Amino acid sequence: MTSLQLSAKEEMVEKFLDAAARGDLNQVSTLLIHIPSLINQSGYSGWTALMLAARNGHHHVVEKLLSLGCDKFSVNNSSQTAYDIARFWGHRHISNRLSRTDDACQRVLLSSDLSPTENYFSRETLDRLSRKRTDKVWLEAKQSHPDTVYLLFSNLSPMVTKCEEDDGERGETRLCRFTFDAVQDLLQKPATVLIFLGVERKNPSSSSWSRSDDGSLEPPAWFAFNTDADAAELLKRCREKNCFFPKTPNRDLLQLSEDEAGVVAQARSVLAWHSRYSFCPTCGSSTRLEEGGYKRSCLDSGCRSLQGVHNTCYPRVDPVVIMLVIHPDGNQCLLGRKKIFPAGMFSCLAGFVEPGETMEEAVRREVEEESGVKVGPVQYVSSQPWPMPSNLMIGCLAVAVSTDIKVDENEIEDARWFPRQQVIDSFRGAYPAFVFPPRQTISHQLIRHWIRMNSNL
Amino acid sequence: MTSLQLSAKEEMVEKFLDAAARGDLNQVSTLLIHIPSLINQSGYSGWTALMLAARNGHHHVVEKLLSLGCDKFSVNNSSQTAYDIARFWGHRHISNRLSRTDDACQRVLLSSDLSPTENYFSRETLDRLSRKRTDKVWLEAKQSHPDTVYLLFSNLSPMVTKCEEDDGERGETRLCRFTFDAVQDLLQKPATVLIFLGVERKNPSSSSWSRSDDGSLEPPAWFAFNTDADAAELLKRCREKNCFFPKTPNRDLLQLSEDEAGVVAQARSVLAWHSRYSFCPTCGSSTRLEEGGYKRSCLDSGCRSLQGVHNTCYPRVDPVVIMLVIHPDGNQCLLGRKKIFPAGMFSCLAGFVEPGETMEEAVRREVEEESGVKVGPVQYVSSQPWPMPSNLMIGCLAVAVSTDIKVDENEIEDARWFPRQQVIDSFRGAYPAFVFPPRQTISHQLIRHWIRMNSNL
Repeated sequence: MTSLQLSAKEEMVEKFLDAAARGDLNQVSTLLIHIPSLINQSGYSGWTALMLAARNGHHHVVEKLLSLGCDKFSVNNSSQTAYDIARFWGHRHISNRLSRTDDACQRVLLSSDLSPTENYFSRETLDRLSRKRTDKVWLEAKQSHPDTVYLLFSNLSPMVTKCEEDDGERGETRLCRFTFDAVQDLLQKPATVLIFLGVERKNPSSSSWSRSDDGSLEPPAWFAFNTDADAAELLKRCREKNCFFPKTPNRDLLQLSEDEAGVVAQARSVLAWHSRYSFCPTCGSSTRLEEGGYKRSCLDSGCRSLQGVHNTCYPRVDPVVIMLVIHPDGNQCLLGRKKIFPAGMFSCLAGFVEPGETMEEAVRREVEEESGVKVGPVQYVSSQPWPMPSNLMIGCLAVAVSTDIKVDENEIEDARWFPRQQVIDSFRGAYPAFVFPPRQTISHQLIRHWIRMNSNL
Repeated sequence: MTSLQLSAKEEMVEKFLDAAARGDLNQVSTLLIHIPSLINQSGYSGWTALMLAARNGHHHVVEKLLSLGCDKFSVNNSSQTAYDIARFWGHRHISNRLSRTDDACQRVLLSSDLSPTENYFSRETLDRLSRKRTDKVWLEAKQSHPDTVYLLFSNLSPMVTKCEEDDGERGETRLCRFTFDAVQDLLQKPATVLIFLGVERKNPSSSSWSRSDDGSLEPPAWFAFNTDADAAELLKRCREKNCFFPKTPNRDLLQLSEDEAGVVAQARSVLAWHSRYSFCPTCGSSTRLEEGGYKRSCLDSGCRSLQGVHNTCYPRVDPVVIMLVIHPDGNQCLLGRKKIFPAGMFSCLAGFVEPGETMEEAVRREVEEESGVKVGPVQYVSSQPWPMPSNLMIGCLAVAVSTDIKVDENEIEDARWFPRQQVIDSFRGAYPAFVFPPRQTISHQLIRHWIRMNSNL
């Protein structure tokens, strides 16, 4: 590589940026015909051709760059978009043009990366081993095995303990684990609902694994059960200190480790299904629990639900879309608050997917219903199980194609556009414009995802 | 722009490709330090540096390119990857290296674009106007309005007609539409379930719209109902020829126009929910239909389901993951067949999302359960409502991290890796290796999405 060739490339970028800054439409066009990849190149302080043209009020160059598909949402080293720059320098014709909605608003989504997010409640520490759910002999052997772990739920809350730290402060919340011997009497009560969660996935070198008759290492099985026995009496069974049943699952269950949260997401969803679906919705008869707690069958042998396969017999999962809506200028996002939120908190809009709807249509309908804002492109980001009682939260970014807000007060209390800088300040806790939703929520992750997309936060 | 500068850029690419083809590791490395963007550039016939190095057996250059993040899944003008080329020319060391799984397998997904797919059953021609569901006065006025459209279902199948073409051939299947007067008697029967679908979204200049008392244009409302009246008698009510109730919805409902399919997706899902959920699953009592057919409330005033909000009262939507699994070599995909499929048909694997699971984990669990193949990165592509009875199909691409197939015969009959060329041939219908799933399925769209990703098909 000769220095002559290297400088030739740098020189081309310099020449292009200089032409944009001077408003030389001819040279900008000619350079782009020959080297289309120049269009989003940046020079000193991360300024692109679009920013330089916007700074100096060259609206013909701005038009040309946009028509060729230039990225209007990229930011310079000071986190400013071309729109911010045009507005600051008073070039209203250009800032209006840059805030206009067009097909290119899809681009605001393209810059997002694919690095997978792990949301709270999402970790799978157990192998569900669903093929074993129909193997009664195996399940029964596992139930009485000394290595088997039992989680005890009362009123759909797991028994947990708060570890006391050396300094007397209370630390992490942990699940109380029981052996078969410690809960055998409870399992025999007719109101107890028992479900099989799976077996441990961890490395088989783990010291807690025992050998089966044929000498192979057997991973411990996990079960969960809900009992209607007196809660105070139940707490006496645990040898650990500070045991309790969380009263407000929405808040208290967010204090578990990532590993245990994943197990609770599975256990609580299935137990909650049993608690509300003990009768056959097709004929009203009683039902019987089967397949390790993953099926309920009608006891009336003439019921239609026993002919063929029907969802009435299987646990319910409710898909919910939750979305961060981005302003067409790329620099603000739409957040709302419900009456039940803690003071000052704003979060993403959300709603249940209706029958006969795609995820994307559900996002558009819910945003318009709740806030009056119309949405164009939608992009899926990540999903999260939310066991209150059994939602699948489907997290998306969406780009607005209208900006007037009209709140539906039956659904939410308020909805506002927040500028990126206010969102960043609120995230950092310095001069917060609003209270950020907790880190365990997919809302929190979606907002962080957006503020990271175009900046180095 | 001088021709000197242009040729400087082309010259750099040429020099780089030439160095790779000659196995000149030093020059390849030096050029990439200075101009990292060279790495995936292609020259004559779409050949990249990786392909040229693979062709000539230069494994050090292949290693270097891979370590710098080169795209091993790109194809030349003959649809060959570097892996195909290495294998063809017998460089086994290199083809083994290229088929190995690593973090870079994420790259196979990155090249997919974001252009939104419209899947069958996905079009929303009606505005659901959910806020009107609780407005009894408005709903009742709409029910008897002469412009209102009624769709008539028997045993969850809509009455349809097959238009006769001039040449006697039967053409498109269309929904039979009724006015209030034509179905009023059926609506009064106690076993009839009536649901409000929404109002037309079309341009208000549409001639079918009437003016309300205040002179504004009123879009026609749509309702659907299911009746247990004799099907043969029902057919006589329609003035159109060739009316019938489809017997196999899975096949017959795929013959509607995109507009009508979207309406049927909504109507059939909700009607199917009513048909299986007429009793309260919490206490077994009868329930009452409310909110335009979008809610059922328990008639026992002491029932727990009436305290607070519970999913027992709302229509059920079952999230299902459906995925095209791509081989780590980027050049084969995993398809399976169930016993009930038409002869020769292979399709994507699929399964219900379980409680407490993310979409991505559901993809990994289902693929491993059904085929024994382990999956790494997962990417969402598009979603589709599937009203048999009420699924939300969540379509994904996934990259395998293991390749041995072990079919679970309780779930599927067969699963195989199909090379890209066989998939393309099967899609075109020339020398098909298997029968492609119908175009109305999201499976079809996922497979086409993949074969389009890296080629010009």
